[in-house]
Amino acid sequence: MLNPFFFKNKSISLKEISSLLNVDIPIKDTKFEIKDIRDLISASKDCISFFHSKKYSDVAKATKASYCLTQENLKDYLPNSCKPIIVQNVLISTALLTEKFYPGSIEDEFDETVNEIHEKDFENIKYGKNVLVGKNVKIGKNCLIGHNTIIEKNVHIGNNCKIGSNTIIRNTIIKDNVSILDRCIIGKKGFGFFPNKPKNIRYPHIGIVVINENCEIGCGATIDRGSMSNTEIGKNTFLDNQIHIAHNVKIGENTIIAGQVGIAGSSIIGNNVKIGGQAGISGHLRVGDNVDIAGGSGVIKDIPKNTKVMGYPAKNIREFLRKNK
Amino acid sequence: MLNPFFFKNKSISLKEISSLLNVDIPIKDTKFEIKDIRDLISASKDCISFFHSKKYSDVAKATKASYCLTQENLKDYLPNSCKPIIVQNVLISTALLTEKFYPGSIEDEFDETVNEIHEKDFENIKYGKNVLVGKNVKIGKNCLIGHNTIIEKNVHIGNNCKIGSNTIIRNTIIKDNVSILDRCIIGKKGFGFFPNKPKNIRYPHIGIVVINENCEIGCGATIDRGSMSNTEIGKNTFLDNQIHIAHNVKIGENTIIAGQVGIAGSSIIGNNVKIGGQAGISGHLRVGDNVDIAGGSGVIKDIPKNTKVMGYPAKNIREFLRKNK
Amino acid sequence: MLNPFFFKNKSISLKEISSLLNVDIPIKDTKFEIKDIRDLISASKDCISFFHSKKYSDVAKATKASYCLTQENLKDYLPNSCKPIIVQNVLISTALLTEKFYPGSIEDEFDETVNEIHEKDFENIKYGKNVLVGKNVKIGKNCLIGHNTIIEKNVHIGNNCKIGSNTIIRNTIIKDNVSILDRCIIGKKGFGFFPNKPKNIRYPHIGIVVINENCEIGCGATIDRGSMSNTEIGKNTFLDNQIHIAHNVKIGENTIIAGQVGIAGSSIIGNNVKIGGQAGISGHLRVGDNVDIAGGSGVIKDIPKNTKVMGYPAKNIREFLRKNK
Repeated sequence: MLNPFFFKNKSISLKEISSLLNVDIPIKDTKFEIKDIRDLISASKDCISFFHSKKYSDVAKATKASYCLTQENLKDYLPNSCKPIIVQNVLISTALLTEKFYPGSIEDEFDETVNEIHEKDFENIKYGKNVLVGKNVKIGKNCLIGHNTIIEKNVHIGNNCKIGSNTIIRNTIIKDNVSILDRCIIGKKGFGFFPNKPKNIRYPHIGIVVINENCEIGCGATIDRGSMSNTEIGKNTFLDNQIHIAHNVKIGENTIIAGQVGIAGSSIIGNNVKIGGQAGISGHLRVGDNVDIAGGSGVIKDIPKNTKVMGYPAKNIREFLRKNK
Repeated sequence: MLNPFFFKNKSISLKEISSLLNVDIPIKDTKFEIKDIRDLISASKDCISFFHSKKYSDVAKATKASYCLTQENLKDYLPNSCKPIIVQNVLISTALLTEKFYPGSIEDEFDETVNEIHEKDFENIKYGKNVLVGKNVKIGKNCLIGHNTIIEKNVHIGNNCKIGSNTIIRNTIIKDNVSILDRCIIGKKGFGFFPNKPKNIRYPHIGIVVINENCEIGCGATIDRGSMSNTEIGKNTFLDNQIHIAHNVKIGENTIIAGQVGIAGSSIIGNNVKIGGQAGISGHLRVGDNVDIAGGSGVIKDIPKNTKVMGYPAKNIREFLRKNK
Repeated sequence: MLNPFFFKNKSISLKEISSLLNVDIPIKDTKFEIKDIRDLISASKDCISFFHSKKYSDVAKATKASYCLTQENLKDYLPNSCKPIIVQNVLISTALLTEKFYPGSIEDEFDETVNEIHEKDFENIKYGKNVLVGKNVKIGKNCLIGHNTIIEKNVHIGNNCKIGSNTIIRNTIIKDNVSILDRCIIGKKGFGFFPNKPKNIRYPHIGIVVINENCEIGCGATIDRGSMSNTEIGKNTFLDNQIHIAHNVKIGENTIIAGQVGIAGSSIIGNNVKIGGQAGISGHLRVGDNVDIAGGSGVIKDIPKNTKVMGYPAKNIREFLRKNK
């Protein structure tokens, strides 16, 4: 299960999908009930998937999904077991259908379910003034929650956690012994949408944020929840102030990230990585274990493990320093 | 009219100006009433303007202002219809006189006029806990205002807008269907002052912020209001988290700006521009329509339309990548 | 005295230190009372110091401390007047002992001592809604404190200061005529810890933040307090929005720092320095007086006074521009 929080429709018939997306589907298929929408890799036999770019053709060939939203020029990559459903814009149709499965996953309206924390029933925690707590919130033992902080709906906090003041959290699982400092915003939707005139089309974010044991998240962080997967921070990873972690990012264990770093969507950072201040990492990249990224660097391609890089574009640190005396 | 919010003195006589700036003015002129202080281009016959650098000499030659604050070595560029008033420091005198026309435009003290929103009379809006609203605030239909948000004085919000939690807004016009996420600060004075020892001299910010239809402003943005013109964001432009937009900046329509970008004062960004994460744009530049600026780039000169740039200083992306393999 | 705020144990006997750090100490020394733990330079005869790297060997030779935490291969650099105490990890032992002298200096839990400001007794100040004030706070005359701001424990504010809304301050001395804008976080512990698995070891921050006369701190700043010394901002220095100043940083007078700049720990910036937007300065560097650092630059070595630098790594601006047309 992707996350324990979002309401999901148990299944949607192909007939409903046909009408939602305004596509034709053979009558014999219309009663088929689709259980979920998933990417090509994680989809199982009772899922629908989506396939919008040739660069995923290898993955498409191996998908287990029974149906797939795609376009005319891509349909032949799909295996016989997966029937193509041709739509005009794969990503927009995917967004529409995902929201049908997960209602309310597109917008992040303010949480109307919150109440003053003292009206709730938490044991063994200390909290400041004006703390608000939404529905479906669990807080472990010996936790501290600072002033003006809002624990919005769908948050599980472990034991011995410290949440600072002026922080806002939703759709997040926080394990034991985690410190989240002041003024963070965690678990909001990412910067994901399809450019469109006169009005961009937002897509759903059905992932959550998971922050594992012993982490520290510095002041002013923004950590967006995932769109189709979770945003995740490994054990004992420390983030300095004013850091931005985009949707679907995964960061390993024992990693150290200095101030004002930004990591773009869907990148995967290894264990024991050190990232200097103000460095930026583009989206959809892999940074291996034990990598050192110098402050101010701009990473625009994968970085193999056990290497040190610097510069923009980030390259081997010795080479960079030799060329840039 | 620059903006509908700031109180402006209807007119100030040259006699008063003479005494305020400690300059001599021919007695026959002293009764002349000046209606406004404007830049060389927008000034009309009943305005005073200011001219402090040779690089504006072409504009100075064509000004319609009747009077102009300037210095000895520049006065001869002005047309006969515009009488020079020689001052020791043009910019400091301009600041002093601007504040005389627009009292209270220099400091951004906290808004003492605010009250709890439920003491006000707004219809058809939903709001969270501890929302404060100042004087001269209009809020349209079907709006949402999150917890702890402060809509300070001089804000007009259109219909169907969503304002997040912990956000502070003043001196701003927000059109319909705009989303402003959590923790933004919009409409405060910019970083504009004259360096001076032992105490810098702030100058007035009499512009506002205008955010047009269908925009989204990400978490943690700071968008400063203009000094002598407005800061403006075009329709359907989306900003990611932790972005800083300085005073007088104008951004076009359908533009997409990724996380942690900074745009310095008075730069003008076109339509359909894409700016990658952490890119920076210097002040007083023009970035044309349909430009792509790669993440992490530093733009220090104008960028012509329909080009892709990368690097620091940002240049043609192919050239940059060829040189930086 | 480093700062007037933190409680400090008057003295700790070598016997207690022996037991705390699990080290052997000659019985004749065990009754010796140590008054403080200081760095090699500032330690006096009744202090203990610490020495963990050969690069400090010159300083070590001249230390006045009577005892020093160090390791086997370094002990011979110490003068005869300073007895080495060999520990397994100098920095971890230093952290442990520092916290013994200054209890409560490691964690920044939310301040439980705060109350609504109107329950306190301040004269001649104006304040907004929901302002909280902790213990040991002094506020001078004619000050303004904005809405939702928390002046936590250990803050002295001078006369004629303006503190914005949503700001959090602790362990800070603010002199006269200072403006701190909205959403700042000042005086929290820095990003200082010893990497360790499965749980990093935080070290104490016993310094404070000092902000001198006539400064302005822009919206959204984070200014961390020092670990073993103070973080300090000189008179009439102005900071734009979204700036991060790490622990122990010292900034001179009349310096101007544009938006989104980051300065890493322990760097020292001179007087009359100008730092352009998004520039970054690595830790433990010296930037001389009258230096200009172009926006977006990355400074990774000392910059001599009266120079202009640009690029990453930042170098002479003419050279940089010649090479990067």
